[in-house]
Amino acid sequence: MSTRYDIAIVGSGPAGLSAALNAKIRGKNFIIFGSDDLSNKLIKAKQIDNYLGFPNVSGIELKNSFVNHLNKMDINITNEKINNIYAMGDYYALMANDQVYEASTIILASGVNFGKPFKGEEEFLGKGVGYCATCDAALYKNKIVAVIAQNKKDESEANFLSTVASKVYYIPMYKEEISVNKDIEVVKDIPLKITGVNKADQLVLKNTNLDIDGVFILRDSISPAHLVPGLSVKNNHVEVDNNMKTNLDGCFAAGDIVGQPHQYIKAAGEGNIAALSACSYLDSKDK
Amino acid sequence: MSTRYDIAIVGSGPAGLSAALNAKIRGKNFIIFGSDDLSNKLIKAKQIDNYLGFPNVSGIELKNSFVNHLNKMDINITNEKINNIYAMGDYYALMANDQVYEASTIILASGVNFGKPFKGEEEFLGKGVGYCATCDAALYKNKIVAVIAQNKKDESEANFLSTVASKVYYIPMYKEEISVNKDIEVVKDIPLKITGVNKADQLVLKNTNLDIDGVFILRDSISPAHLVPGLSVKNNHVEVDNNMKTNLDGCFAAGDIVGQPHQYIKAAGEGNIAALSACSYLDSKDK
Repeated sequence: MSTRYDIAIVGSGPAGLSAALNAKIRGKNFIIFGSDDLSNKLIKAKQIDNYLGFPNVSGIELKNSFVNHLNKMDINITNEKINNIYAMGDYYALMANDQVYEASTIILASGVNFGKPFKGEEEFLGKGVGYCATCDAALYKNKIVAVIAQNKKDESEANFLSTVASKVYYIPMYKEEISVNKDIEVVKDIPLKITGVNKADQLVLKNTNLDIDGVFILRDSISPAHLVPGLSVKNNHVEVDNNMKTNLDGCFAAGDIVGQPHQYIKAAGEGNIAALSACSYLDSKDK
Repeated sequence: MSTRYDIAIVGSGPAGLSAALNAKIRGKNFIIFGSDDLSNKLIKAKQIDNYLGFPNVSGIELKNSFVNHLNKMDINITNEKINNIYAMGDYYALMANDQVYEASTIILASGVNFGKPFKGEEEFLGKGVGYCATCDAALYKNKIVAVIAQNKKDESEANFLSTVASKVYYIPMYKEEISVNKDIEVVKDIPLKITGVNKADQLVLKNTNLDIDGVFILRDSISPAHLVPGLSVKNNHVEVDNNMKTNLDGCFAAGDIVGQPHQYIKAAGEGNIAALSACSYLDSKDK
């Protein structure tokens, strides 16, 4: 039987980490999903002047201070990408690549790095368009698939797909050198739209068209409306009240995902609020 | 002619300081009012575990990091207590003890350490009850005044009053040793209510009653509704939207003053938002 966590925190940027500190201090049984880099946005920041207490630091320096804080508090990050979260009544089911996690409350802190959807992406979602190649690879056995990838780390998903599909096109949206399996065709072009009749059958790029059976779009974050069905979203941000509560009971959100300004200490402050709101919610349910 | 600041920040706790960093970075002409101790609440904190980036610090250590940040950014705190703020149409007038400051926008970040009003306090405000002995001393020439003081630093106000009034009662609400002028009568008792007919004429304490012409109540912070007439306040906190905007144009608020949880990094995050909202407001007015 799987553990039912009190709180599952999705995202390891300042919002998620700040939430984790407070969940720890409050003695909750929690899990935080993210990566050892903590946040791509953070580690790429050249200079940060407005995180109070750290004058003129680089993103890496701030990240190292955060890692030190996590270590001192004995908090570990679970290296999993959460692809979907479903409200199950009195708990949430969080779908990772090959595992399901359960939690009574969730805190969404996965940032806004999900980009604007491509034309046709929402129309064909679940009908040839997907976000998790590892999860859905079996559907594309001996078929033709395109992978639009935002990060070098997505190469492993494409490699795995190529062991199942008959053909994999790989469209990298990043600048680092590409190293994928030899049987994958790398297409350096700009995706414009996904077309089809009842399901996606063509990926239209700026300079070419690819006939496909499926397209995987791999981004750092999944747009909140796709991540949690039923979540209230406005202008591409999750709607929250002053307590960081969303429209779904037991679901809180913090950081860039809830709105401008997209700033580190604002995110950390909101993570604090979200965690304490989640604790209050849990305590009120226990009564 | 006095300077018209772009932004006046009231309070030098984490919310005010974080606002100041952002006002500085955005190149605004701003002033921040507070004290060299930054925040009484902060410096008295024994251990803080949830200010992300600073594991297990004392309030003093965190305060020193903040001071270092201010110094590096060349930000100076103006040691003035703001007693009242009036909306003047396109600017705000901030009343300090012996000076008026003007600013196009204000950020209220003065905390919640204003206590519950005494019975009769609100009824007789301006009719024998006041918050600034230095400002109103002249009204009490040769009269009898009581001073209820929350902090040792308030002793100087009582001393000044005693050079004007015929009699000063001093009721200290703090534990440090009292050292006021010899002609001041120190009354160690608990104030309960202020009574009178058309104006305050008696201060009722737990063990005694004092006949007075006026009472000064000196607290760290002034309750927001008294600080800024017309400000929308709910449950003793200033009402703000997600952008930290209050009901008054050009008036923003951040930190403990806007609501629970009363936490340092939450305050700092809100100060960041408030400053950027003030900048947007100023920029939109310039167009």
